[in-house]
Amino acid sequence: MSYDTNNIFAKILRGEIPSHRVYEDDHAIAFMDVMPQANGHTLVIPKAPSRNILDADPETLSRLMPVVQKVAVAVKAAFEADGVTVVQFNEPAAGQTVYHLHFHVIPRNEGVALKPHSGTMEDQGVLAANAEKLKKALSE
Amino acid sequence: MSYDTNNIFAKILRGEIPSHRVYEDDHAIAFMDVMPQANGHTLVIPKAPSRNILDADPETLSRLMPVVQKVAVAVKAAFEADGVTVVQFNEPAAGQTVYHLHFHVIPRNEGVALKPHSGTMEDQGVLAANAEKLKKALSE
Repeated sequence: MSYDTNNIFAKILRGEIPSHRVYEDDHAIAFMDVMPQANGHTLVIPKAPSRNILDADPETLSRLMPVVQKVAVAVKAAFEADGVTVVQFNEPAAGQTVYHLHFHVIPRNEGVALKPHSGTMEDQGVLAANAEKLKKALSE
Repeated sequence: MSYDTNNIFAKILRGEIPSHRVYEDDHAIAFMDVMPQANGHTLVIPKAPSRNILDADPETLSRLMPVVQKVAVAVKAAFEADGVTVVQFNEPAAGQTVYHLHFHVIPRNEGVALKPHSGTMEDQGVLAANAEKLKKALSE
């Protein structure tokens, strides 16, 4: 299937929809997931368009993963997590709901199960405060 | 925490433990997960040692992801999947059980839930047959 230039993340990239952005470089951005599966759940997306990993340019993936790593290290520090889950869904059968390639970076704590994917909308104040925490950790 | 050179995947890399290997290049191998969360569940690991994404060399990640992509495309074809889940666990709180960086590539079908992580050992004959299917898809 082809890439839809009006998907939500394309709109976030163009600044047409607000987001709690925590990182940006020439090729990628990271922002807080508005329906976090755990406190501090962050998304990392490339600027280049692709539906998911199946149709992405391999170079886009090569450039993106060090950013995913940076964000993983930072969310662990910022949210005092015991671990981090990195997950990437391809097509509806896998649970993909937005069709622009994205990696979920989710802080994990011992004994705390993940909330459902695409569950409850988080309070904007909480997201803003978490974005500040994470930006601080990313700058250290 | 430091890298344990005697973890199971290090032993698989050294050929000390057998595996159903489907892919190898200078920097990575892929092989069938022996406790698949879905039929065709495959693991992609770098040859370079790291505990997980948190301590990996960024270059290792950059080289690994095009292989993860290749395997994702191939498992979708080989197992006639509707989608693919890519997941990577860091530290016990996230469900990591083997401490050598690895990406899970899991074929998904509509309406079929994943089996638990580190669940039931698959029959060796099934794994061998799946490895053949996947090697064929990887060579196409």
